[in-house]
Amino acid sequence: MSTEYVNPLRDPRDKRLPRIAGPSGIVIFGVTGDLSRKKLMPAIYDLANRGLLPPGFALVGFARRDWDNEDFSKVVHDAVREHARTPFSEQVWRHLAEGFRFVQGSFGDDDAFDTLASTLADLDRVRGTGGNHAFYFSIPPNAFPVVLQQLRRSGLADPHGDEWRRVVIEKPFGHDLASAQELNTIVNDVFPKESVFRIDHYLGKETVQNLLALRFANQLYEPIWNANYVDHVQITMAEDIGIGGRAGYYDGIGAARDVIQNHLLQLMALTAMEEPVSFDPKNLRTEKIKVLSAVRLPADLGQATARGQYAGGWQGGQKVVGYLEEEGFSPTSKTETYAAVKLLVDNRRWAGVPFYLRTGKRLGKRVTEIAVIFKRAPHLPFARTDTEELGSNALVIRVQPDEGVTIRFGSKVPGPSMEVRDVNMDFSYGQSFTEASPEAYERLILDVLLGEPSLFPQDEEVELSWKILDPIERYWAKLNSQPEPYTAGTWGPASSDAMMARDGRVWRRP
Amino acid sequence: MSTEYVNPLRDPRDKRLPRIAGPSGIVIFGVTGDLSRKKLMPAIYDLANRGLLPPGFALVGFARRDWDNEDFSKVVHDAVREHARTPFSEQVWRHLAEGFRFVQGSFGDDDAFDTLASTLADLDRVRGTGGNHAFYFSIPPNAFPVVLQQLRRSGLADPHGDEWRRVVIEKPFGHDLASAQELNTIVNDVFPKESVFRIDHYLGKETVQNLLALRFANQLYEPIWNANYVDHVQITMAEDIGIGGRAGYYDGIGAARDVIQNHLLQLMALTAMEEPVSFDPKNLRTEKIKVLSAVRLPADLGQATARGQYAGGWQGGQKVVGYLEEEGFSPTSKTETYAAVKLLVDNRRWAGVPFYLRTGKRLGKRVTEIAVIFKRAPHLPFARTDTEELGSNALVIRVQPDEGVTIRFGSKVPGPSMEVRDVNMDFSYGQSFTEASPEAYERLILDVLLGEPSLFPQDEEVELSWKILDPIERYWAKLNSQPEPYTAGTWGPASSDAMMARDGRVWRRP
Repeated sequence: MSTEYVNPLRDPRDKRLPRIAGPSGIVIFGVTGDLSRKKLMPAIYDLANRGLLPPGFALVGFARRDWDNEDFSKVVHDAVREHARTPFSEQVWRHLAEGFRFVQGSFGDDDAFDTLASTLADLDRVRGTGGNHAFYFSIPPNAFPVVLQQLRRSGLADPHGDEWRRVVIEKPFGHDLASAQELNTIVNDVFPKESVFRIDHYLGKETVQNLLALRFANQLYEPIWNANYVDHVQITMAEDIGIGGRAGYYDGIGAARDVIQNHLLQLMALTAMEEPVSFDPKNLRTEKIKVLSAVRLPADLGQATARGQYAGGWQGGQKVVGYLEEEGFSPTSKTETYAAVKLLVDNRRWAGVPFYLRTGKRLGKRVTEIAVIFKRAPHLPFARTDTEELGSNALVIRVQPDEGVTIRFGSKVPGPSMEVRDVNMDFSYGQSFTEASPEAYERLILDVLLGEPSLFPQDEEVELSWKILDPIERYWAKLNSQPEPYTAGTWGPASSDAMMARDGRVWRRP
Repeated sequence: MSTEYVNPLRDPRDKRLPRIAGPSGIVIFGVTGDLSRKKLMPAIYDLANRGLLPPGFALVGFARRDWDNEDFSKVVHDAVREHARTPFSEQVWRHLAEGFRFVQGSFGDDDAFDTLASTLADLDRVRGTGGNHAFYFSIPPNAFPVVLQQLRRSGLADPHGDEWRRVVIEKPFGHDLASAQELNTIVNDVFPKESVFRIDHYLGKETVQNLLALRFANQLYEPIWNANYVDHVQITMAEDIGIGGRAGYYDGIGAARDVIQNHLLQLMALTAMEEPVSFDPKNLRTEKIKVLSAVRLPADLGQATARGQYAGGWQGGQKVVGYLEEEGFSPTSKTETYAAVKLLVDNRRWAGVPFYLRTGKRLGKRVTEIAVIFKRAPHLPFARTDTEELGSNALVIRVQPDEGVTIRFGSKVPGPSMEVRDVNMDFSYGQSFTEASPEAYERLILDVLLGEPSLFPQDEEVELSWKILDPIERYWAKLNSQPEPYTAGTWGPASSDAMMARDGRVWRRP
C-alpha cells in the first residue's frame, strides 16, 4: 500500500489549509439502496479523487445480499462511473477499492455484527483506519433500535483511547415531537450527542453555506436584514417530480413532515438568525435554536396554512397521473403533496415579518430559493404612473438549480420619461468561480470524518422543529378532509394563493 | 404640408404619455462645427424619427458659409446618414427637411439677423412654429455678447404672448467664478433665467438619470447610502483619447475646468443629495445646491489634489505622442490633462466620507463611473485567513460604456472551507431593456423644446462649482510647476495614487 498520494485535482495555488480527513472508515447499513448508490458511493470516490480522504480509507458495506468483496466493489465501481462528478482515475480508484469490504447479514444476526467487528479490527491493522469508524444508517427508522443494540453488543459503539465512533442518520428524524424524542433517546443511549450526525443534505449545499458569507462577510445586506426594511420572506422548495415508487415512505408522511420540518425550517433559521459569535458548531447552533424557539404560529391555522394533493396533468410535455392514481397508494389517501405555512418570529429583528414556507411535488418547476422581499420605498418622489410597473425589491438566494443570488430592483426605463420598472441583477455561482462546487454529500461525509458538526442539526433543533410543525399536523388531522387537489405542473392549490392574498401578498413564480 | 404623421418607431404597447414637443424650431449658431454635425443634426433627426418633434418643426442654420437652403439640407442629410442612431426613413426625412432654412452672415452683421428674424416669422406662418424658437449657441463664449445683443436688437429675444424664446449654451460656462458670473450676467440681461438652458450632456445620459431611480425608487440602497456605511465615493471620467486638434480650446483650461467643474461635480451632487420633494426642476435644483454648498476642500490642497500631463506612450497598439508634442501646443504648457481632487461634504449624511473625483486623457480605458465603496463589515465572524481575499463592498454605477450597475460583494468560494472572495453582480442596461437608450443630446434637445429644465444646471449651480474649483486652480497656479508626467495608456500620475494611499485607499482600475 502506497502512502504517497498525488491529488490530481488540487490546485497548487490553493492557499487554504487542506481539510483532509484523518485515518478512518465508513460502514454503510442499507448499502444496496438508492441513496447509497446514487449519493454516498460517488461522494466517497469524489472525496478520494480530490485528495480529501486518508490514504488508508475503508468503506464497508453491510446488507443481506449474498455478495463478496468483489461483488461489492463492482457495485461501487458502477455507481461511481455513473454518478461521480469528478473524472474517473484508475489510480485513485484502485487505491480506494483496496479498502472495500462487504459483510453479509441481517440486522438481527449477532454473527454478522461479530464479523463486522473483526472486519473493522482487521482494517485498523492493514489499512490503518485507527479504530475510527462512522456508521451510516441508510435504513428505515424502525431498524435503528436493533442496529444500535448490535453495535453496542459487539463493542463497535465503544471507541478506545483516541479512537472515535460516529453514527450518521438520514431523515426522517421521527414523525412528530414525541417520536423524535423517543428516537433521540434510543440513539443517545448508545452514542453520545456529539457522535450523532443527522444528515440534512440541504445544509451541505454551497448556496446555503454562502448565505452565511453573504450575510456576515458583507456590509451591504445586514443593515437592511430586519423588520424595518423587510416585508416578508418566502422560502420555497418546489419539485417537478411526483411520488412514483416511494409510496411506502411518503404516504402518511406528506410534504410538511418530509420537507418543511427539516430543510425549510433549517433554511429559515439560517436566514433569520443573529450573527453567531463564530461559525463553530456550538455558536451556530445557539443562534439557530434562538430563532426556532422564537417561531410562533398564527392563531388561526386555517388562515395561515394550505395543503394540496396533486391531480393528473401535464408536465414536461408528458401526461402524468395524480397522487391517488400512483401505484401502491390508497385511492383515499389524505396525505398532502403540497404544504404552505406562515410563521412569525417573535423577536426584535423580525417582529411583524411573516416567513412563508412552501413545498410541493409536481409543481411548475424544480427550484429551491430563499426570497427576502423588501418593503416598498417609504416615499416615491415620482409621478404615480411612472412607478406602476415597479414591484418590491427582492434579494433571492437561489439554492438550486442555477445556484446564485438575484437582486430585483427598480431601474429607469430608457426613454424621455422617468418610468421605473423592475430589473434583475444576477450573480451566478457557476459563472463566478472556477472552483467546482462539491456535492452536498461530499461535504457532509467529509465533515463526519472530520468530526465537524456545524452543518448537522442537533437533537434540540430537530425537536424544536417538530414543536413548530406538530400543531399544524394536528390541525390538519382534525379537519380529516382531503387536501385540495391541484393540477400537476401548476403552482399548487388555490387555497395557498388565497392564503397570501389575504395578507396582500403573492407567491413568487420562480 | 401634411399634418398626419406616422411615427415608425413608437411601440404601440407603450402606455407612457407621449412627451412630444409642441410647435417650435431651433436656430443653431455655429452650425458648421463638429458638435452640430456629429450630435445636434443626428439627434434632431432621431427625435423626428421617434415622433417626438412637432409636425411643422423647423431647423435654421446660421453661419458665415456661403450656403443656400439646399446646401444646408445636404450637409444635414450627410450628418444624419453618418451619425443618426435610428434607421433612415425617406418619409421622415422629407417631412423634416421641409423645415430646413439657412441664413448666411457673421455675428456682427445686422442684416443677417434681420434676415433671421424674417425667416423665423415666415416659418411661423408656413410651418406653424408658433413663434417658439430655441437659439443653440454652438459657438465660443467670446461670441456670446454680440449674438445676444443681436438677438435683442432684432427683437428675436422677445416672445409675444404665449410664445417662447430659449437660449442653449454649451460649456465652458466661464473659466472661474468671476468669469462665470460675468457670463451669467450677460446672458440673463437678454434672456430670463428660466429661458437659459446650459447643456451638460452627462446629465442627459440614461445612467445618470437612472441614479435617481436607483436611489429613490428602491428600498435597498438608501438605508446604507450614508456615512454609517459608506467609506468613500470615487467618481471617474477617464478618456483614452488625447487632445489632438483641440489645442485652442483645451490649452490653459485643463482637465479640472473641462470636466470636474461641470460633469463630475454634477454627478457628485446627484450621488450625494437628499431625496428631493419631487423631481420637478426647482426641487431637484434645491437639493443639488444644498450639496454643492456643503462641499468643503481639505485644508492642505497639496495632499488632497493631484494633476498630471500625459507623456508619449502606447495606446490601443499605437504609439502616441505626449501632450507637449501635440500639434499646436506650446512645448512648455503647464495645462493638466489629468486632475484628481478629494472633497468633503459637511452635512450629517456624509460627514467624514471623502468624495474622490478624477478625470484624465490618455488613460488606460474610456470609462465613466460612480463607485460607492462601503466600509467593511464591522465584525467578521470568520477565520482571518478565510477573508484575506475579501475587499470592500462596492456599488458601481457604470455611466459609460456598457451602462449599468455592478455590486461587488463577498461570496463563499466553493469548497469545504469557509473562504470568502469578492464577486460581482451585474445589471446591464442594454441587456435588460428592449427600449433603446436615447442619445443624451436627443433627450436634452427635447427637454429644451418642452421647456423642461431639470437636467440643465442653473447659474447658481455653475457658480457654486467654480467656488469649489477656484481655490484648487489658484493653488496649482501658485505652484507654477509642470504637472507630473504620466505615460499615455496608464492610470495617471503617481502623485494621484499617493494621494489615495495617504488615506489608506486605492483608486479602482475599472
